[in-house]
Amino acid sequence: MSSTLGTLFKVSTFGESHGKAVGAIVDGCPANIELSEADIQPQLTRRRPGQSDMTTPRDEADQVTILSGVENGKTLGTPIGLMVNNRDQRPGDYQEMSDVPRPSHADFTYQMKYGNRAASGGGRSSARETIGRVAAGAIAEKILAERFGIRITAWVSSVGEIDARDMSLDVPTRAQVDANMIRCPDEAAAEKMIELVTAVRDRKDSVGGVLTCVAEQVPIGLGEPIFDKFEARLAQAMLSIPATKGFEIGSGFAGARMFGSDHNDPFVQKDGRLGTATNHSGGVQGGISNGEPVVFRVAFKPPATIGVAQETATFGGEASVLEAKGRHDPCVVPRAIPIVETMTALVLMDFVQRQSFRIS
Amino acid sequence: MSSTLGTLFKVSTFGESHGKAVGAIVDGCPANIELSEADIQPQLTRRRPGQSDMTTPRDEADQVTILSGVENGKTLGTPIGLMVNNRDQRPGDYQEMSDVPRPSHADFTYQMKYGNRAASGGGRSSARETIGRVAAGAIAEKILAERFGIRITAWVSSVGEIDARDMSLDVPTRAQVDANMIRCPDEAAAEKMIELVTAVRDRKDSVGGVLTCVAEQVPIGLGEPIFDKFEARLAQAMLSIPATKGFEIGSGFAGARMFGSDHNDPFVQKDGRLGTATNHSGGVQGGISNGEPVVFRVAFKPPATIGVAQETATFGGEASVLEAKGRHDPCVVPRAIPIVETMTALVLMDFVQRQSFRIS
Amino acid sequence: MSSTLGTLFKVSTFGESHGKAVGAIVDGCPANIELSEADIQPQLTRRRPGQSDMTTPRDEADQVTILSGVENGKTLGTPIGLMVNNRDQRPGDYQEMSDVPRPSHADFTYQMKYGNRAASGGGRSSARETIGRVAAGAIAEKILAERFGIRITAWVSSVGEIDARDMSLDVPTRAQVDANMIRCPDEAAAEKMIELVTAVRDRKDSVGGVLTCVAEQVPIGLGEPIFDKFEARLAQAMLSIPATKGFEIGSGFAGARMFGSDHNDPFVQKDGRLGTATNHSGGVQGGISNGEPVVFRVAFKPPATIGVAQETATFGGEASVLEAKGRHDPCVVPRAIPIVETMTALVLMDFVQRQSFRIS
Amino acid sequence: MSSTLGTLFKVSTFGESHGKAVGAIVDGCPANIELSEADIQPQLTRRRPGQSDMTTPRDEADQVTILSGVENGKTLGTPIGLMVNNRDQRPGDYQEMSDVPRPSHADFTYQMKYGNRAASGGGRSSARETIGRVAAGAIAEKILAERFGIRITAWVSSVGEIDARDMSLDVPTRAQVDANMIRCPDEAAAEKMIELVTAVRDRKDSVGGVLTCVAEQVPIGLGEPIFDKFEARLAQAMLSIPATKGFEIGSGFAGARMFGSDHNDPFVQKDGRLGTATNHSGGVQGGISNGEPVVFRVAFKPPATIGVAQETATFGGEASVLEAKGRHDPCVVPRAIPIVETMTALVLMDFVQRQSFRIS
Repeated sequence: MSSTLGTLFKVSTFGESHGKAVGAIVDGCPANIELSEADIQPQLTRRRPGQSDMTTPRDEADQVTILSGVENGKTLGTPIGLMVNNRDQRPGDYQEMSDVPRPSHADFTYQMKYGNRAASGGGRSSARETIGRVAAGAIAEKILAERFGIRITAWVSSVGEIDARDMSLDVPTRAQVDANMIRCPDEAAAEKMIELVTAVRDRKDSVGGVLTCVAEQVPIGLGEPIFDKFEARLAQAMLSIPATKGFEIGSGFAGARMFGSDHNDPFVQKDGRLGTATNHSGGVQGGISNGEPVVFRVAFKPPATIGVAQETATFGGEASVLEAKGRHDPCVVPRAIPIVETMTALVLMDFVQRQSFRIS
Repeated sequence: MSSTLGTLFKVSTFGESHGKAVGAIVDGCPANIELSEADIQPQLTRRRPGQSDMTTPRDEADQVTILSGVENGKTLGTPIGLMVNNRDQRPGDYQEMSDVPRPSHADFTYQMKYGNRAASGGGRSSARETIGRVAAGAIAEKILAERFGIRITAWVSSVGEIDARDMSLDVPTRAQVDANMIRCPDEAAAEKMIELVTAVRDRKDSVGGVLTCVAEQVPIGLGEPIFDKFEARLAQAMLSIPATKGFEIGSGFAGARMFGSDHNDPFVQKDGRLGTATNHSGGVQGGISNGEPVVFRVAFKPPATIGVAQETATFGGEASVLEAKGRHDPCVVPRAIPIVETMTALVLMDFVQRQSFRIS
Repeated sequence: MSSTLGTLFKVSTFGESHGKAVGAIVDGCPANIELSEADIQPQLTRRRPGQSDMTTPRDEADQVTILSGVENGKTLGTPIGLMVNNRDQRPGDYQEMSDVPRPSHADFTYQMKYGNRAASGGGRSSARETIGRVAAGAIAEKILAERFGIRITAWVSSVGEIDARDMSLDVPTRAQVDANMIRCPDEAAAEKMIELVTAVRDRKDSVGGVLTCVAEQVPIGLGEPIFDKFEARLAQAMLSIPATKGFEIGSGFAGARMFGSDHNDPFVQKDGRLGTATNHSGGVQGGISNGEPVVFRVAFKPPATIGVAQETATFGGEASVLEAKGRHDPCVVPRAIPIVETMTALVLMDFVQRQSFRIS
Repeated sequence: MSSTLGTLFKVSTFGESHGKAVGAIVDGCPANIELSEADIQPQLTRRRPGQSDMTTPRDEADQVTILSGVENGKTLGTPIGLMVNNRDQRPGDYQEMSDVPRPSHADFTYQMKYGNRAASGGGRSSARETIGRVAAGAIAEKILAERFGIRITAWVSSVGEIDARDMSLDVPTRAQVDANMIRCPDEAAAEKMIELVTAVRDRKDSVGGVLTCVAEQVPIGLGEPIFDKFEARLAQAMLSIPATKGFEIGSGFAGARMFGSDHNDPFVQKDGRLGTATNHSGGVQGGISNGEPVVFRVAFKPPATIGVAQETATFGGEASVLEAKGRHDPCVVPRAIPIVETMTALVLMDFVQRQSFRIS
């Protein structure tokens, strides 16, 4: 296990889906930041299941408590302990799965690696694990917004074969993103996506999707070549989110099909500083932010737990048919939005703290 | 700067394109491994420029010297110092670029971050930086092959709009990969790719491409959720390679368009162990290797340094036209193959050492 | 702040003296270890204040709760969340200190470093911070005892000018250590120490002391030269405990007065393995454990918070007289015993996990 | 092995006593620092053996080469590669030791841990290993001196039973320290020490000693509680130096014999800032520097390799008599001075970089 992220703004998380609590410690947060639970709760609430027909109806209030690190409404510079109780500690729905590892889920690999695994639900591999990160990242978001004006916004850019129009040059607000259940600000596409997810849910199947995320007002100079290049740490952060299968920044895989003369971003004078006329680079050059918006996409596979009957095998290797009981997310991308945003904030915040040293 | 990678098998690299030397320290290598320069040289030679018309003709022998950590042909368990001298320390070709940052290159961001940069060539952002990694990774490859039979093979799967056929289920050998200049074992595609790169080179332009890489015989259980999931650290490693813009594992971005009932990999009995019938997961589930081949793709943008005239701006913001002198790689993907392979080996080797602890 | 310790057995702690809770996350604990709160509580209880007239009478039950990482009485291999509620969240006793930094306490340096500090008590610099470490270290102790038979025992070897006889060759049990209030198993010395501490307490002063600690049955080969030598990491761990001023291993400062021909520990055959006839090395040679008992001493200064009137200055630099109100520990060494023992266990456990890798 | 030190100013070292070279990579050094070999060489030369009758006559020029990270006399912000060739790669003197592990040396523990060891000399456990650290630390010293006026000075305060007078309140200059062969600025004591070391050398024995080190002009606020407290990381650094057995800061072990009312350092107004009237704290409170001089002592054991006949055992457990051939240091403390100073600089420099972040 490796549940600690960051060099100076360091987050350690804990918690399974059905233990007593989940949470995190944020170590290295600057002192004298105004902070209360109210700053953290909104992203946790956006992440919460049961918000709509699009997501699993399991009800969890997910109220965060700050255990330490804040006094009189201000951070002390000491570790911030964050905790969210699990209400729903032992559901019956999961139990019959125990002999049959769910295909494309972590049941098999956890059992093989640890020789043990949470008997119910996904344990540490459950989406519930992300609560600690989201809570920690919400603190990073607040600092980045207040001190640098950084805005981080993700939205659903595709579900299955339905693609939204490109909005990376005209970034929506979070309110616009949240305006519909699927969190795609292209309303025409959103309608079709909702239709698709509803149909998929009704037939007990699931479907994948892609998020686009843009970080605006990122200062020039963040990122630590060579192994902690901006895009390298961002890719690590994104691929650590459950169900992700791909990451691309700027032109991404499409850029691999282009010629240099089309792909290069020429420099131009912009608002009194050097900027680029195009942004195929996605805001980074040589592993360092260049002042343009950081634009990236993250691919999520269809959720592995489905009610459709699957021919598979038991741990012992015997043929078996699995039909997951209970209600499960038919599509994770709407709920993944606050996770992607807050993970981005964690990466940025750590770079900010590593960069800002100047002996002068 | 952050030039150290790994938790137990730890690699630190140094060196600019035009300093005295480039190299690495490998700390945490097991003792009693047979090792000599001859084990490391082949991947360095495959990475070397000037091997064909496809790559930059700058001639560098790139002979590695082991400075420490090996005695009587065996590793001591102490840090292995690795060094490759730079022959060609101060070329004139680069000099007139100094006022004009090359578009989509690291000139601008290095200057902004550090307030200084190598006057000639790309300095630390040059492809020459990768020598230290390749040398270190060649040691990891040797150990992984000898002890676990792990084979890591990358090949060119696309150049520009030319795609090779899918070879991930019938993985070529390195000899097959090296059989043509472009390192694509689909000969029909290779021919077109070579034609394209030749044309691109002749018009002083550049073109991007994609590598596919497969790691076979990876033991079950590698990867350290949650932040050091297998695919997360692999993504970090790949996005730390110069010119990369995207990473996907298994089904990747295509998987985001699929339904769960199609995407899930059913378990089947296989050679006396539990395997999966399909491999959309790309060899990892829940951030841990599942014993199937690890399959991933890496997107490389077209090289930024081109001879085509580019309208851009000086550091001071004045309009300027830039035409890079000298000969430059029109396409990096053939030379990127040993880099991707050895970086994969570094990630795997670190996971092997972190995993193999069992108190029992 | 840096509240995370360890490379593979990683402990992150949180909590101030007067927040809601203190605690820790233990990441990297092996799976399938039997574990419950009952395994952790004894060392927390030994650390607890109010156990005797020797220590501060502030009453805190210090009951630990396991929040995650354990299911059905066994560890899952996932992070273990540990929490102890603070009962006594806002005492009045400390308030009038706010303008006058306590001499030799952390009030001044915290304020200067963070520009903020806990208004009451020592906040993060309080002895209460050690609860998270002790809870985490109790888990390490259990594993080390069960798998290797390692025993870690500390006792009070001096208080002020009163020295106990050397017991490092005839190590007492924890029960013998706990047999008297001062936790010194040399009863004659203990009696004088108790007398001294009582007198010191009555005149509202404080006194320092030294602990000796021995780790027995430590396997040969632990420690990671050069920067993580066994004694280097042990020294770091000990000097991270509040109020410590010195660390010495084996012959320590006395060894610096000796000749090599007297100091060297000759090898002898011992129980079928190579051991040493003497143990001036204190169980380590070249930064690596040699199989002999690890013997070290830790110096604790007299507690800084005293009722005696002190002529000092306010934060603003004005002369002031400070008399601490309330009841404070006149001597920390008895309560420091479980802290020293569990910190030793954390260092050892991390070395065990880093060492045991053998590709073979 | 763990040969990397530091969080932001990161040093990785390599090299055995009889390989091709020893050296280091310094990663995270600020850019635009004027730097050349001439800045590094003096401390290497002070460390060099063969400077006097007091130290081993083995002749090594120890000329450092900067391999990377510096261009036109200024640092680039990229890793600085540092190398010193080993002249004397295979001496015969050591060979007959191979069956008999030297008592109190690392021969036995290296063999047991790694299953291999350098056949000649101490390999990685040799004092020659410290060259990389000294070279790296010399860079840190330069930056600390130029930007903060920090002065770090160590001297020999005891050899065997001969103690110099306390000079911690009237710190000598390095020139004064170097004025005699034993590097003790108390001339009366120095004379006796030299006499003692000469006698010890003549009878082929060795003797231990203690260094005192003072860092002046250390800014307030350095150190990262709780695990990276100033004194904790300093203790780790010191105990990672070969032959060290103890560390104490400020009052140290003597402080453990004192009462709080005597030991506390009262605050006083001093040069326009709050300082302390006494300095029992040794410049740190709560793990953070308080602006007073940092004063600490390090105990060195007598060197293990002696010519005196020692009754010991072979690796196989058979009784044997060992008389080391060749010439060896009878006392390491004079040569340890630059090592202690530069290791202090490495610890300080890392704290400076970790501290100086202020979002404001």
